[in-house]
Amino acid sequence: MIPFDDRGLLLGDGLFETLLAVDGALVAPQPHLDRMGGGCAALGLPPLDSAEAGRLMAEALAGLDAPRAAVRLTLTAGSGGRGLDRPDAPQVRLFATAAPAPRPAEPADLITSTVRRNDLSPASRLKTLSYLDNVLARAEARGAGMDEALMLNTRGDVACAAAANLFWLWGGRLYTPSLACGALAGTMRARVIAAAADLGVETAQVRAGPAELARADAVFLTNSLIGVRPVRRLDGFELGEAALVARLAAAVS
Amino acid sequence: MIPFDDRGLLLGDGLFETLLAVDGALVAPQPHLDRMGGGCAALGLPPLDSAEAGRLMAEALAGLDAPRAAVRLTLTAGSGGRGLDRPDAPQVRLFATAAPAPRPAEPADLITSTVRRNDLSPASRLKTLSYLDNVLARAEARGAGMDEALMLNTRGDVACAAAANLFWLWGGRLYTPSLACGALAGTMRARVIAAAADLGVETAQVRAGPAELARADAVFLTNSLIGVRPVRRLDGFELGEAALVARLAAAVS
Repeated sequence: MIPFDDRGLLLGDGLFETLLAVDGALVAPQPHLDRMGGGCAALGLPPLDSAEAGRLMAEALAGLDAPRAAVRLTLTAGSGGRGLDRPDAPQVRLFATAAPAPRPAEPADLITSTVRRNDLSPASRLKTLSYLDNVLARAEARGAGMDEALMLNTRGDVACAAAANLFWLWGGRLYTPSLACGALAGTMRARVIAAAADLGVETAQVRAGPAELARADAVFLTNSLIGVRPVRRLDGFELGEAALVARLAAAVS
Repeated sequence: MIPFDDRGLLLGDGLFETLLAVDGALVAPQPHLDRMGGGCAALGLPPLDSAEAGRLMAEALAGLDAPRAAVRLTLTAGSGGRGLDRPDAPQVRLFATAAPAPRPAEPADLITSTVRRNDLSPASRLKTLSYLDNVLARAEARGAGMDEALMLNTRGDVACAAAANLFWLWGGRLYTPSLACGALAGTMRARVIAAAADLGVETAQVRAGPAELARADAVFLTNSLIGVRPVRRLDGFELGEAALVARLAAAVS
C-alpha cells in the first residue's frame, strides 16, 4: 500500500519498467535496471538500489505460477509536502508486482492516435508514471476496435506505439524513429537492432512521417513482453508481410 | 492508503483539484467539482460523486487548524489489471488531504522552461495526475533560483506557468492564452476575467509568443491558492507594475 502523500500517486513523479519472466526467471533484467537508474539521474532522484529492485521482483515472481509473466517495477519520488516542489532529500519508494502475460497470438491492427507524443519534454526519453497520454491513445485504439495506437510526435513524425517501439522494413533496410523523435530507448528495440545486424540488416534511426509506414514492406512493434509483433493493418490499410520479421521474432524470443 | 494496482499510481490515470479554504470553509468549490466532473467524462470515467467529494474535503479540513489551507481532492481511475487498458467498469478512488497554505508575499520571478506544454494531447485541457512535465518545469525554475516556470506549448506560444495561469496587460487590455494553446481552464482564471469585466477591462484569449510578455505593461499569475500574483522578472528582465493588477488581486481575494 502507498500513502496519500506519495508524489508518484499525486503528480506522476516516478518511473517504471516492465520485464518479461519465463518459467520464473527474468529475461535480460540489466538493461531495465540501467534505464531506471538513468531515469533516476535525469529526474534528480537518488541512485537506484538495484539489489533491492532485484529482491522485490524475485519476491513478486515467487507468488506466481505462470510460464510467462510480466513483472512491473515501480519507483516513486516518495512522500512529499503540498505542491510541485520536491523535498530536499527525497526518499524514493520501490515496489514490484507480477502477472501472467501470454504472448499475443495475432498480428496487431493499429490506428493513428489524435494524441501526440510530447517529444518536447525530457519525460519522453524516460519511462515515467505520467503515462496518461499513452493510456488515452490506447483507449482511442480500443474504442475503434483496434489493438494498438500509432503515436506521432508534436511535428507529426512517427514516434512509437502506445506501449511499444515501432520498426518498418523498406528496400531491405530496417527503420525506426530516432530517440529525438520522442521514441523511448526500448530494451527490445536495442535487442532487435542488434539481432538485425547479426542477420546482416542495418537499422536506420530516422525522422519519418506516417507515409513511410504506408509504403513499407512490413511494419512491426517491439517491447519486452511481445518481443516482435507484426502489424497487419494501419488505419484500415493492409500492410505487407516479410520473412525477416519472423526471423527477428525468433532471434529475440 | 492506496493499493499497488491503482491506475492513478501506476499510470497517472486520474484527476485532481486544489481548492483554497479560509478559516475552515472552502472558497468557491463548485467550479472545481464541475471541472473534475468534466474531466471524468473526458476520460471515460463514471460521474463524480460530488457529495462524497464534499464530505472528504470537509473531513480533511476538520483535522487542520490553519487560517488559510490548500485542500487537494484526488480521483484515480481505481484498481486495474496489468497494462494500459482500463477494466470494463472502472471503480474510481477518491480522497482528500489538506495543508496550511500561506499566501506568497512577494511577486514571482519566472524563467522560461525548456519543457513544453503538450497542447496536442487532450490531457492539456484536464488537471490530471500525469503532472511530471509541470514538476520538471518547476524544478528547472527552482534550480535557477526562480519561483515559477513559464511553459510554452509545442508551437512555441505561451501556455501557462507550471502551476498557474498567466495574464498580461498591454495598452489597457488584458490578455491570456486561449485554451487551445494548452492553458488549463483555471477557476481563478475565470474569476479574474469576470472581475476585470466588472472593472470595465476586456480580456482577450489569444495565441501569443513570449515576446508579447516582454513588452507587456504588467504580467501576473493566477490560481486558486495565490489568487493574483504579480510577476517581477521573466528570464532576468524586469517587468512593469500596474495598479490594475493590485485592483484585480483585491477583487478576487
